[in-house]
Amino acid sequence: MDDSRLVALRGGLGVVPGLKLAGVHAGIKARKRDLALLSFDAPQVCAAIVTTNEIKAAPVLVSHEHLTKHGSGMRALVCNSGCANACTGERGDRDARATARQTAALLGIEPTAVIVASTGVIGVPLPMDRVQRGLERCVAHLEGGGKSAFDAAEAIMTTDRVPKLAAYSFRDGDKKYVVGGIAKGSGMIAPNMATMLAFVATDAPMTRDVLFGHLLECVDESFNMISVDGDMSTNDAVYAFAPAGKGEAPAGFAAALRLVCLELAQAMVADGEGATKTLTMHVTGAQSVAQARKIARAIINSNLVKTALYGEDPNWGRVIAAAGSVNAGLDPDTWSLYVNDVLWVGVGAIEALSEAEGHEQMEQASVAMRLDLGLGEMRATAWGCDLSKDYVRINASYRT
Amino acid sequence: MDDSRLVALRGGLGVVPGLKLAGVHAGIKARKRDLALLSFDAPQVCAAIVTTNEIKAAPVLVSHEHLTKHGSGMRALVCNSGCANACTGERGDRDARATARQTAALLGIEPTAVIVASTGVIGVPLPMDRVQRGLERCVAHLEGGGKSAFDAAEAIMTTDRVPKLAAYSFRDGDKKYVVGGIAKGSGMIAPNMATMLAFVATDAPMTRDVLFGHLLECVDESFNMISVDGDMSTNDAVYAFAPAGKGEAPAGFAAALRLVCLELAQAMVADGEGATKTLTMHVTGAQSVAQARKIARAIINSNLVKTALYGEDPNWGRVIAAAGSVNAGLDPDTWSLYVNDVLWVGVGAIEALSEAEGHEQMEQASVAMRLDLGLGEMRATAWGCDLSKDYVRINASYRT
Repeated sequence: MDDSRLVALRGGLGVVPGLKLAGVHAGIKARKRDLALLSFDAPQVCAAIVTTNEIKAAPVLVSHEHLTKHGSGMRALVCNSGCANACTGERGDRDARATARQTAALLGIEPTAVIVASTGVIGVPLPMDRVQRGLERCVAHLEGGGKSAFDAAEAIMTTDRVPKLAAYSFRDGDKKYVVGGIAKGSGMIAPNMATMLAFVATDAPMTRDVLFGHLLECVDESFNMISVDGDMSTNDAVYAFAPAGKGEAPAGFAAALRLVCLELAQAMVADGEGATKTLTMHVTGAQSVAQARKIARAIINSNLVKTALYGEDPNWGRVIAAAGSVNAGLDPDTWSLYVNDVLWVGVGAIEALSEAEGHEQMEQASVAMRLDLGLGEMRATAWGCDLSKDYVRINASYRT
Repeated sequence: MDDSRLVALRGGLGVVPGLKLAGVHAGIKARKRDLALLSFDAPQVCAAIVTTNEIKAAPVLVSHEHLTKHGSGMRALVCNSGCANACTGERGDRDARATARQTAALLGIEPTAVIVASTGVIGVPLPMDRVQRGLERCVAHLEGGGKSAFDAAEAIMTTDRVPKLAAYSFRDGDKKYVVGGIAKGSGMIAPNMATMLAFVATDAPMTRDVLFGHLLECVDESFNMISVDGDMSTNDAVYAFAPAGKGEAPAGFAAALRLVCLELAQAMVADGEGATKTLTMHVTGAQSVAQARKIARAIINSNLVKTALYGEDPNWGRVIAAAGSVNAGLDPDTWSLYVNDVLWVGVGAIEALSEAEGHEQMEQASVAMRLDLGLGEMRATAWGCDLSKDYVRINASYRT
């Protein structure tokens, strides 16, 4: 794979040929766009990775059923924000099915060819009359290109401050393809699938199994390695679409999908609720990728590390305490810690930076740390953000 | 066991005959008491339950060594606050041993008969000259009774706002015994042993194995069921002392120890960093105690539940989402949720309270919820607190 042939594009999902999008204000939220529609000209294979929460929202369950029936011929995805349609009992199930049915009727396709997704408050039913009228407006506005992708990305936002789009082109020989995506998520983001929404699509043909394999690998490295607050949602899902093809994906697809997922994941962390700075946590010298991932996630997930980051306090003891708390096989005698590529604490817990020097490193808007376990050759990276007073303000008053 | 014969006492550890205490300002912290000493007139059996963090502070490791050598003849415990003596390399080990040696010399006992404990900032060495002078002052001040126990409880505080003491008397036939304890902990409290410090003692004789068995059972129900921030410390430990005896403990001991541990644990949560209100989370209708505990702890540990509590937002969806996130076997179709003994959400996610009624319940200073899993007969309770802007303030500026 020649990575140099990957080219970053603007426009997110809007760059994908044969995909039309819209995002409108349906009135589920008081203001702002709250209903997004993706419509494919031709049937797509679709791969999904969804929340492992035992409480799954109705749209997650209904979409799973549709994918089981129709997973190689999906035609549309509809997503609302403002209402999660989770813990809504039988009515929630009916509403999710009705949303798919109404979308299908408007587009002239099968209801089971529609993925439904929701994000927002749990335990409140969908206002179906508004959804219906919103869908009609979506269909009227469907078009390709960056503007419509931006509208759709905006329509799936909850407490996000910015829409999240990413796209890359890649070449396989003379053929050029694209991968694009949009995502939302700024709270309830935990280092455990899925806890956010991301929709990606490509014009590179492949089988559904191949698409799923690539998606799984990329999600493990990206969306599963971020955390805002350690909470796992009832609704979150990644859906990937591709034209049906035979066998493997074109060369370059895996690398392009990986970059799209990484960019969307990092955008979520940077937009974490109340976040004032981000933490990129590398764990190296591990005996296995699983060990490195477990420790990296424990660190970005620690409230004490996150508040130290917010306070720009060079309190490396909290980093080590978090690393040791998950019983991942940390050896107290072999680790060393770096901050922004500078040695911070050497083997044997010898401080290499003064308090003032450590503080200076913590003042950066984006802090990178590397914990070398001194045990092996494997590594992993996780991305997190600080825990600020604003996080508390946002989440203490989410509904009021 | 006749619980009615348990009598709550004032004075914490000060009620235990044959135990003298002191708490002084040694200068490890700028102000306030920071060094506590417990001295037993006669050798005691001692049981310990310590942090499972892979990074263990020097005093935890040195005390473990002493307990292995001398576990049925312990004579003293010395504990400083302000410095954790964790991640301090070989020097930390030497300092912990020197603290035990100096204490032993002043008391005329063996160094291995001394337990050492520390709490405070990680990665900073103990100022040993101040510790030595502080120990001398401690020995000069040693006495029994509530005042000295209060001083000792104050001397082990870090960000705690109040000293934590608890004591009960109980009768076995005509004989009367006591159990007393002191504890500290208001941050870095996670629902996983140990993450705080608690020292308990009794005049009821028993073997070391019997003491350990009772301690383990009580800790699982108390200190292991509380959370302030989900972080596990490098230093935390519970040490229990009793006169050596043959066989079982006197009747009533288990119940008295349980109450002492529960009171100390609940005092920690009520004093949680920045806490404005507490949450008592009962999980009932479980298939096993383990299932009930796992779900109860997941709920009190969720930042989104904690911020909703702070904001008095009746956002029950967050409670259920947290319960479902730990794969403990929650059935989405059988649960119901109560708040302060009022049905909040019935089976099938049917809301029984209006938003205003739910808000009214959340306004109480101490909120109790009960999640009935609808699966069996077992139950567990966990205690937590809200996540406030003050938590962030305290932890962002802990060292400055």
